[in-house]
Parts: sequence; structure tokens; C-alpha cells
Amino acid sequence: MATVDELAPPARILLGPGPSCVHPRVLKAMATPLVGHLDPEFLRLMDETKELLRFVFQTQNSLTLPISGTGSAGMETCLVNLLEPGDEVVVGVNGVFGMRMVDIVERCGGQPVIMEAPWGQVFSPEQIEAALACCRRPKVVALVHAETSTGAWQPLQDIAPIVHRAGALLLVDAVTSLAGCPVEVDAWGIDVCYSGTQKCLSCPPGLAPLTLNQAALEVIRKRKTKVRSWYLDLTMIEQYWGEERVYHHTAPISMNYALREALRLVQEEGLDTRFRRHRRNHLALAAGLTALGLPLAAQEGYRLWTLTSVRIPDGIDDVRVRRQLLEQYNIEIGAGLGPLRGKVWRIGLMGESSTRSNVLLLLSALEEILHTQGYRCPPGAGVAAAHAAYADS
Amino acid sequence: MATVDELAPPARILLGPGPSCVHPRVLKAMATPLVGHLDPEFLRLMDETKELLRFVFQTQNSLTLPISGTGSAGMETCLVNLLEPGDEVVVGVNGVFGMRMVDIVERCGGQPVIMEAPWGQVFSPEQIEAALACCRRPKVVALVHAETSTGAWQPLQDIAPIVHRAGALLLVDAVTSLAGCPVEVDAWGIDVCYSGTQKCLSCPPGLAPLTLNQAALEVIRKRKTKVRSWYLDLTMIEQYWGEERVYHHTAPISMNYALREALRLVQEEGLDTRFRRHRRNHLALAAGLTALGLPLAAQEGYRLWTLTSVRIPDGIDDVRVRRQLLEQYNIEIGAGLGPLRGKVWRIGLMGESSTRSNVLLLLSALEEILHTQGYRCPPGAGVAAAHAAYADS
Repeated sequence: MATVDELAPPARILLGPGPSCVHPRVLKAMATPLVGHLDPEFLRLMDETKELLRFVFQTQNSLTLPISGTGSAGMETCLVNLLEPGDEVVVGVNGVFGMRMVDIVERCGGQPVIMEAPWGQVFSPEQIEAALACCRRPKVVALVHAETSTGAWQPLQDIAPIVHRAGALLLVDAVTSLAGCPVEVDAWGIDVCYSGTQKCLSCPPGLAPLTLNQAALEVIRKRKTKVRSWYLDLTMIEQYWGEERVYHHTAPISMNYALREALRLVQEEGLDTRFRRHRRNHLALAAGLTALGLPLAAQEGYRLWTLTSVRIPDGIDDVRVRRQLLEQYNIEIGAGLGPLRGKVWRIGLMGESSTRSNVLLLLSALEEILHTQGYRCPPGAGVAAAHAAYADS
Repeated sequence: MATVDELAPPARILLGPGPSCVHPRVLKAMATPLVGHLDPEFLRLMDETKELLRFVFQTQNSLTLPISGTGSAGMETCLVNLLEPGDEVVVGVNGVFGMRMVDIVERCGGQPVIMEAPWGQVFSPEQIEAALACCRRPKVVALVHAETSTGAWQPLQDIAPIVHRAGALLLVDAVTSLAGCPVEVDAWGIDVCYSGTQKCLSCPPGLAPLTLNQAALEVIRKRKTKVRSWYLDLTMIEQYWGEERVYHHTAPISMNYALREALRLVQEEGLDTRFRRHRRNHLALAAGLTALGLPLAAQEGYRLWTLTSVRIPDGIDDVRVRRQLLEQYNIEIGAGLGPLRGKVWRIGLMGESSTRSNVLLLLSALEEILHTQGYRCPPGAGVAAAHAAYADS
């Protein structure tokens, strides 16, 4: 076969739904020579990583660790370990990731009870209560905290009591929220929560941090059937990450180096400061987009700081705009998924990507590109509105 | 919580069952800033990686790609996609990884037909024929090419015709063989083959390259039930890695950068040269260990070039020797697994770790450490025998 050139990818500004930009210290960690997955030094690093993950999840849960796969592997791990054939699961479906949960529940042999909301909207406690009332014996209520396909932000503070009264566990997808906005696992009574590394943690994709509390572990301990996945069997993974250190699979050493460094950066910044930064940049972006005449797609009052979806104006060519952003400005933004394909853009401001410079550059670039497609708006309106929002906040 | 120190792991020489040492060019690739998983440039890199993987697997199979998990995820991917409840699978069990396949077959709802050989030995074509004769309607015969737990090397050249006559597919675990000794997927008639990145490819752990031929794809296309895993569903993964480029999960970008670079290094060295290097270093190590009075554990004539298991002499403290190697020489070797725990050491000479310097250093270090535990052997015998073997080869 022909030879393949040396790796030289373009220097992108990653403002899509993930991966986000990665800090040089995390990249340096990725390049660190490896130790073995049972090396005492690696086992020590694993303990530190678990401790740092407990900090970002705001939990004391002993079982808190990264799964050796991307965010969706985290989703599958939680469901495949909790569910046995016939188990009822209420799944909130208001975007792609709720739909994915339904698919996985079925593959686990479970019975999804689909609770729907329009894409871009969220669920009220009353809706969840009503869905539970339709179940015979619900085992899990699964909600997406930050719906990456719409930018909707599901409130979670008042959900756990309702779920627990029905005898079910609360399972939360925090892939696009963890380390970008508050995720308080213990305070909010979340039983099971998972995330991914390539969003607000600003680590390359490849690991899925998750955490389970005692109630969730009890459910797993009482299983009557084997977990349908060997690779994602938490009881075995826990024995490797726990004191037993029993070999299961070969942990992705370099990815774990990177995650630990990304978590150190989160700790150094502090969660509150980090959340404020995400909020501020989101508000400026939202103000700028609105001033450009582009309506935000998610329900007002429930818009994520980490991912903003915005409607594509009539007559504007979705693919061409994104290609121009990529080719002329090296900026990646995300396309719409499913029914929103061609209708929205998804702009991520996550982790290292959430900066004032990125907000202003994107608004300028977008205005210029829309202009070439005949779209009219007051010159400089986006950037001016963003500046005003920064001055206000 | 307390702060966590900057990452500074010790500089290990990795001579265990994997991960192996990683070339600086691969480490550099890991540190390359990321592009998005749907970036045109990343899609181009994916195509190059598939082409390079076809080269190392020696196949024309269109479906040849890395799964986003470690080697065991590759094993699970192959089985979970091929199997439906009730399917019969003949599994060759002569070590840990055959046992693992049995476990996964059961989780997929399949019926394993266990074909056993003593640990360290391999299966003859006659044994496989006999096992197939006991089946009603065998769907798959699963064999481990390179049993990482014993160092046994399963011959595969004459197996496919037997398997195909019985109407079954031949599935091969090449985790510890790919790129270290010949794996000729097309020439040998292998239908399904998977590997890991952290062995003879000398890439960090985190991806599982695999390849399936048309016959295997037909079996998947004709499934009556959904694949039990969403994350490992090949039909969906293929749509992302194929021309459709449909989003499935977020590919681990950096790991894919690294794999591509590791494959470029394999291509530059050439497969035959690489195999000869692995053979030469294995023969020197084997000669040295034998001269030290340490018997090799795998069946003579069927010993891997990539992993050598050696019996621990009576009265020698397994754990203490490995700790001394690690602490005094920064050398990692592997412990025995399962029934071989405390009875053998597993020495990997894979990819970048397979060097003359490593062979000589390990033999010197081992002799010295055994000496401190009262073990007697002619001074310098191991190194001398290795030198002689190099002169011969």
C-alpha cells in the first residue's frame, strides 16, 4: 500500500458539541510514557482520579470511576448493570440522547416507558410523577441533564424525592453538564450519574466518568441474571478500581493520565469560578446571536451554559455556513441532529473552549459568512451585544 | 479535597503482557491538538487507518476498523454482533482468554461448547473437528491465536476449512499476535479477527482493531434480534467509519491519532522484518532463561515470539522478584493468571519492547535478583546463552 503522511491536522477551534479544546497540560499528559495498568504507581494515580471525580460530581460515592469507553459507553454501563429482562424504566425523551437511552434499555431486555417533551423543552416534576403513576413497578427514571442535541437544561433539584417515593432510582446523563454547570449528585439525591471526558472536562474523548450510590449498588448486588456485557460489568470493573486490584481489562493508561490532569485543572480553577465562566460566555453568545436575529432553539429559562442551539434563518445553507466557518476560520460548530438537522446549529462553549475570545470570534465570523449568503443584520450587532453582556455580568 | 501532584510516573521498561513501550512518535501523536470526530480531516485519517489496518491484518475486508475500547471490547464486539440467543459456539479454552470468551458467549445468550486443552498447550485440527461433530448447528468456532496467559501459539493455517465445512465461522483472538507474528486473515480463511493496540502495535491501550469478512457480515445482516450492545453495534459503527459518516459515538480522536502513527511505524519497518525481530529476541530470551535453569511453560514448538511464560523455581518468592525488578531496574514483567498465579512469570517482548537491550538487561537483572533469594546458576549463563542465540540467528 501507499505510505501515509505524517500526522498534521489543522488547528481547529472546537465550538461544536464536543470534543472541546484541550489544555496543553492535558496534551502533555497524553504524551507521557506509559506504566503498566497494575503498576503500583498507576494504582495510586487511579485513587487520585477517583477522588478528583468525587469532587466534580460532588459526591461521597465510593464507586466513582471512569469507564474505558466514550460517554455513550457510560450510558450503556449504567443501564446494562441496573437492568434485568422485564424491568420498567421511565425515560425522558426530548432529544437524541433520551432516544438512545430507550434503545439501550430495549437491548438490555428492559421495558422503556417513554415520557416525551418537545425537543428543546424539559420535564416538570408533575410530568415525571404522572409517568411514574402509569408504571407497574418502575425500577429507574432516566433523565438527560444537558440534552446535547437541543441545548435544553433539565432541572434536577426536585426530582429525586418523586422518583424515590415510587421505589425507583434516578439515573442522570451529565455528559454535557459535568464541570460546566452544577451537578450535585449527593445533594440532589441522584443515584446514578455518568458523563464523558471530551465536553466540559476538556479532556480528549475516550473515558466515561460515572458514579453510583449505595442504593444503586444494592440493585446490582441483587441481580438474578448476569450483566449482559462483560466489558462494562461494574462488579468486575469495581474490583480492579477498588482495593482488590483484580485484573479485568487493560485500562487506557494515557487517557487516564489525561483525565487526571484535566481534573487537576478543574480543581485549580474551582467549580464555582468555572461555572461562572461558562455562564458568562453563554450569556454573551446568546445576546450576540439574538442581536444577529438568530433565535435560540431551547426553551427560555432552560438553556444550557455549555451548549447553545440556534435556529438557522430561512434561505441560509447550513452545510455551506459550517464549511466556511471551518475552512476560513478553522472554527467547528455542530450540525442539528435528527429532526433538527438543517434547522439548528449547536454551539458548544465547554471547558477550554468557553472563552471570551471564542465568543467574539465566532460572532464576527458568523456575521460575515451570513452576509455572503445575503442575510442582513445591523453590522457588528452580534459583537456589540456580546460586549454589552460582558459589561453587565 | 487536597491537591494532587503533577503527573510524573516512573520510566518503566514494559516487559509484561502489555502495554508495551510506546515509540516517541506515537506519544507525540497523542499530544496533537484535536479536531472534531466529524471533521473532514479526521474522516480522511480514519480512511488511512482502515487501510493500514488491512495491511497488518493482511486482508481486503472492507469492515476493518478500531473499536473504541480495549482488546476485550474487541472480543465482546465480535461475539455480541454475531450471536443471538441459543447460538452454539465452540470455544477453545486453554487459558484465561478462552475462558473470557465463554463468559461473553453466555452473556450474549449463546451456548458455549467448551473444547479444552491443558494451559500452555494448543488445539489440533482433529480436536476441533471432533468438537464440531458434537454440535447440532455450530455458528462460530472461537480460538485464541496467542494465549496471553500462557504464551501458547495456536496454529491456524489448517483450521478454516474444517470450520467452514461444519457451516461455522472462524473467529480469532489476535490480541497478542497482530504485528508481532504472522496473522494472515485472508490467506488463512479467518472470518472474524480482533486485536488490541497496546501489545505488538506498541500504541497505548484504548482501541481494539478488528476485521470481518463478507460471510461474517452476512450473519450480522440476517440477525432476527437486536445486538445486545448499543455501544458495540457494528452495523452502526460501520456507518460512521464507512461512507455514510453517520454519527454514532464520539471517536477517541487522540487514540486514533496514536494508532495511525503506530501503524505507520509498522509499515515503515515492514511486517517480515518486524516478525524476524520478534522471533530473534524471543529465541535469545528463551535461550537465556533456559540457561538460567528456568523452564519455559508453553508447549515446545508452540511458543509465542511475543510473550514467553516461564516457570518460577521452587522456593522463589514471585511477588518479591517482580517488585525488585520494578524497584531496582524499572522493569515490569507479568504475574501468572488464574491457576498459574505464583507459578509462572509472563515476559512480553512486543513491538517497541522487543529489543536486544531489553533481553540482555532482563536476563542480567533476573539472575542477580534470583541470586539474592538463594537461587544458584552459573554466573552470566543467561546473558551468554542469549548472546550465542543472537550470533546463531
